[in-house]
This record gives sequence, C-alpha cells and structure tokens, in this order.
Amino acid sequence: MQNLRIPGPTPCPEEVLIAMGQQMINHRGPEMAAIMKEVAEKLKYFFQTKNDVLVLTGSGTGGLEAAAVNFLSPGETVLSVSIGVFGERFAKIASIFGAKIIALNFEHGKAADPALVKKALAEHPEIKAVLVTHNETSTGITNDLKSLASVVKGAGKLLMVDAISSLSSIDLPVDEWGCDVVVSGSQKGWMVPPGLAFISVSPDAWKAHAESKMPRFYWDLAKHKASIEKGQTPWTPCVSVIVALHKALIMMEKEGMQNIFKRHQKIADFTRKGVKELGLTLLAEEKYASNTVTAVLATEGLDPKKLLKVMREEYNTVLAGGQGPLEGKIFRIGHLGWVTENDIKVTLDNLKLALPKAGFRS
Amino acid sequence: MQNLRIPGPTPCPEEVLIAMGQQMINHRGPEMAAIMKEVAEKLKYFFQTKNDVLVLTGSGTGGLEAAAVNFLSPGETVLSVSIGVFGERFAKIASIFGAKIIALNFEHGKAADPALVKKALAEHPEIKAVLVTHNETSTGITNDLKSLASVVKGAGKLLMVDAISSLSSIDLPVDEWGCDVVVSGSQKGWMVPPGLAFISVSPDAWKAHAESKMPRFYWDLAKHKASIEKGQTPWTPCVSVIVALHKALIMMEKEGMQNIFKRHQKIADFTRKGVKELGLTLLAEEKYASNTVTAVLATEGLDPKKLLKVMREEYNTVLAGGQGPLEGKIFRIGHLGWVTENDIKVTLDNLKLALPKAGFRS
Repeated sequence: MQNLRIPGPTPCPEEVLIAMGQQMINHRGPEMAAIMKEVAEKLKYFFQTKNDVLVLTGSGTGGLEAAAVNFLSPGETVLSVSIGVFGERFAKIASIFGAKIIALNFEHGKAADPALVKKALAEHPEIKAVLVTHNETSTGITNDLKSLASVVKGAGKLLMVDAISSLSSIDLPVDEWGCDVVVSGSQKGWMVPPGLAFISVSPDAWKAHAESKMPRFYWDLAKHKASIEKGQTPWTPCVSVIVALHKALIMMEKEGMQNIFKRHQKIADFTRKGVKELGLTLLAEEKYASNTVTAVLATEGLDPKKLLKVMREEYNTVLAGGQGPLEGKIFRIGHLGWVTENDIKVTLDNLKLALPKAGFRS
Repeated sequence: MQNLRIPGPTPCPEEVLIAMGQQMINHRGPEMAAIMKEVAEKLKYFFQTKNDVLVLTGSGTGGLEAAAVNFLSPGETVLSVSIGVFGERFAKIASIFGAKIIALNFEHGKAADPALVKKALAEHPEIKAVLVTHNETSTGITNDLKSLASVVKGAGKLLMVDAISSLSSIDLPVDEWGCDVVVSGSQKGWMVPPGLAFISVSPDAWKAHAESKMPRFYWDLAKHKASIEKGQTPWTPCVSVIVALHKALIMMEKEGMQNIFKRHQKIADFTRKGVKELGLTLLAEEKYASNTVTAVLATEGLDPKKLLKVMREEYNTVLAGGQGPLEGKIFRIGHLGWVTENDIKVTLDNLKLALPKAGFRS
C-alpha cells in the first residue's frame, strides 16, 4: 500500500472505506436523518463546543468562503493574521466579497505574535472581525491560538479561525477560547475522504449573520442551521462522506479525544527527531512546530522536487512540496488522522535512502 | 436491497461502489491527474461539446451558483424561465448576487412556451442572459430546450441551462443547440454518489466571464479551467466521487450514449403506462413528461405522505414527495441512472398493494 504522507487527503481506515462504498440512501429520509443528527452531536464534542456545527458539501476552501460571507458586510474592516498561503487565501476571499483587509502578515515559517495583533486592534478600532489560522498547512506552524483568541476576544472582536488541518488532531477548545467561527475539513484529522467542510457558529456570530449583507446562497449558514435540526442539509450533501464520517467519529470516540491529541503529539515529536537525525533542518521553531504536518528545509543541495519523485517512484511514499514563496525550498510530511508511529518510521527509513539520490549531502 | 426510486441520489452499480471505497490518493499527484484528464474528456463526450467542462466539489445547487456568479455583473438583467422549484432557485441565486430578474414563471406542471420567451426577449432588449431548466426535477417536466435555445440564441443572449437531472440521461447536444453554460450533478444520471457538479462553458460565456463583476472565489471557473489543464482542481476535490465517476463513465461509454437515452425513454414510457394502469394520473402532459422522473397526482383520496411511508416501511421502496406548491399534491418516481425496467416493475407491483393503504380509491 502507498504510504500517503501529505497533509490531506489522509489515508482512511478500512471501516471508513467500507462505509464509503455503501449503497446510496435518500438524503431526506429517516436513515440519513439519524446519521446526520449523530454526526452533528459528535462534531460538537470534537469541536468542544455548544455552538452549532454545520456540515457543508465542499472543500475546506468552501468552508473558509462560508466563514467570510456569512458574518460580514461589504466595506467592513477585517484584520487578517496570516502566517502562510492559507491565511492569505482566507483574507483574499473576504476581500473579494467586499471586506476591507488590514493585513498582518508574518514571514512564512513563523508564528503570529499576539502582541502585534493587540497593537493592530488598538490602532484600528474599526476592525469588526479577525481571521486567524490555527494550523498553517503550508508551513507546518501551529499558532498560539489561545493567546491570539484572548487578545481578539479581549478587544470584543469576532474571531474566525481556519482550523482545517488542526481540529480533531490538536487541542482546540472552541468555547473555552471563545472562537466564534471555526472551520475544519473532512480529509484532514477526521480520517475520511475530502468533500465536507465543518463550521461552528457562536451566538455572537449568529448576531453578526443577521446583520451581514454579503451575498450568499449555497453557503448561507442560516439555511444549514434550519436543515440540520431536521437531520438534513439544504442541498443534496456528499452522502458517502457523511456516512463514512459517522463511522470515523465512532472510532475517534473509542480512542478518546485526549488520546488522539497525545498520539499526534508523540508522532510529531518522533517525526521531528527523526528528520533532524537525518541531518535535515526543520522550518519551524520547535515551539510552534505543528503536530499534523512537518515542513523540512531543502538544505545541503537537496532538490525537493526530485526527492518527492524518488520517494514516490522508488519507495511508494507520497510527500508534499512547498507552496507559494516556499515552493522548491521545503518538503512536507503529513502525520494526521489515521497515522501510526510505524508509518513515520517507514517514511524516515525511506527518506534516508532517497535523500542522497535527490542531491542531499549529509 | 432498498429500491431507491427518488430523482437522486440514485443507486450506484457495484463497480462504482468499489471505486468509492478505494484508499485515498494525492489529489495533486500523477494518478489523480490521469483520472481527472480522462474524466474531463469523457464528460465532454456526454455533454456533446467541445467547450470546457469543469468539475466542482459541491451539490448541484453549487453548480447553479457557479453559473450565476461567473458570467454576470450586479445590475445586469436576466430572464428567468422557470417551471418549478429548481427554476426559481436558479433565479433566486442570480438575484441574491445582484442580477435584475425578469421572471417568466410557468405553472408548476407545465413546460415553458418558447413563444412567450421570444416575446419577453423582444420586450426587454436589456436582457443579457437567460436561465432555463432542461428537466425540472420537482415536476417531472422536460422543457423543449431545442426550441427555447433557438429563441435565446436567435436573440443573441447567453443561455444558461440547469441540466442537473437530465444530462447523460436525456439527449442534450450542448454545442448543436448553442447552450453557453450547462450544469449537471453527479448523483443523477451519472450513477455516482452526490458531491460533484459539472459545468460546461462556451467561448461566449468565457467572454462574459472576463467582464463579469459578481464576487466569487470558490466557484471561480477561471481557476478551475487553469487547474483542470494540469489534471487538478484548485481546491481539494471530492476524490472518491471523481474516482467513482471515472468508472461510471467507462460503463456509460460501453453502453453507448444513444442506448442510454433509449433505455431512459423506454423505462419512462413503461413507468407512465404502469402508473396510468393503476388508475393514477400523471402531472405532466405526456409530450413534456420527463424521462428521468415521473410526477403522479394524488387523486382519489390518496395521501402521498402516507404512501411514501407505506412504500418505505412495508415495501422497501423509497419514492419522493412534492416540493413547493406541489407538496402534498403529488408523489414522484425517479428512473434515472442505474435503473432497469425490472426496478420499475417491482415499484409498480408494490404501488398496487400500497395505494389502498394510503387512501387511494381506484
């Protein structure tokens, strides 16, 4: 079997794949309603929230668009706290739909500094909402969201979080930290294929929704809220991924949320240690290094594109390259969702053999 | 096995379900690119077009939103030719994003009259585009799209077609009829689960796209066009449904496009004949009766909600109810995609037994 070590889509357990292959059911029938209601409850558990958690058929980027268009009006000011490609994408979407963006961009490979966020909020009292990435997939950095949230909520602003590649793998107590809108995506820590985005909405966010004037239809969360209470979605959903997610959530409950976080921590530590032992250098300062994806610098003559090719063709292992300004400068190892330490051990063993073939002089 | 006789999601063949259960692959890797390129070519074949056909992760309604937001600017005038719930939805989306709608609404259960479309176009030279439903799922009516298209293109307007529940089941030669934008959905005639929408874009539509000012990001078709040329999508797609679609398209090619149309025609004729033999009345005038879904009037004391319940609980057969103004007044039988005459024979046999239990006095 291919060792798929990219930060999503992630490999799926056998039980999930069996669920994916189940025959279609009526998306407005009682079987689906029972599944949807359980899925919604279990999602709330993993979001650690009493807020509504809605299920959208779309990519994670669709979830970000839903976050952008449901709570803002054209002309309103938004602070974008960005540490990479996906932070910039979130801001771009809000901007296209008419928000004024104040961009607080940190260098790709660094975490956001809460003190600078505080400063920006003080300088711009007109800011209505703040966009923050919890885990930046393109750089393998996890922001100190607890501190960032404290600053944003201390200033009374709406906090919108891209947690696509963190939620369910890395601790994110949505209610405790006061996150108003939080987006995740099925193909990341949830152990199911892509096709769904999840979004939690706080009471304050619903108030903003009622006043928001950005145009929306497909992503209109009020429609999704009205439907999920009947165990439905307003439009025909990606039934198979919902059925698969139901299975995955049961497996995740059995493992235990804290155990899942610990497993990701342990495997990420193992990955970072192994990478360094190979003579490679991590992009991230270890304090902010992500527990779901590790970005490795292309040092000592390493050609990361060549490395990906060799790893795939000779070692049946799929790694990810760099994006945006980091293209050609890093490679990335995904370790989220259905992953064991052994998956990484095999990856590291193969990396050791592949590195010299890709120009690396250790 | 449940006899799922709703107009989508439709049952999937075993080969498609096996494909749905395949392990994840890299959505930016060579395996996926090979599949995507073949899927795009085969979709063009079934769309009978040389235009681009793009693959979106979303519901059919997402496809309609993509059609609405990619080719128009706020303030532009659009003629909505609607014969039911889905026609109204298409207009609603365009309206929300700022189009001025001239609504030409036909009674639910009737087809659109090309002469009235011609009249509306003559009266309103400011009309830029026309929204038309090919097959209205809510009423089981297939419009005479060839005549409608001839009127619209004769007036030099952009023609946008909702063919979600017709394309691949009912003949729709996109290029021959001059349809600029055509939307379909995976869970209909394509024999795969929901999760994907397909949209074809003519050169004239691309010209309109270049000038269009409606806000869009997730549905921006220029991004999809740039990606599909590399065998990718701009955002992580619903990989499983694409892999399943690849299988389904191969099966459809083997059966032959014209044979698929004939099969749908034959099964629809069989359905209509059988329904009438039970003493029931069709909603549609037979000339416009859809070959993918049959709407049946709740006459002679029939309670359609009760009928759906009895059919599901006692006969393991799932039918659909009415929507909008037809709720409680009709029931619907889906016969599209992976369907045989025997599926309908069983449905009719069970209907005969269930009807008296639901109040029907034959």
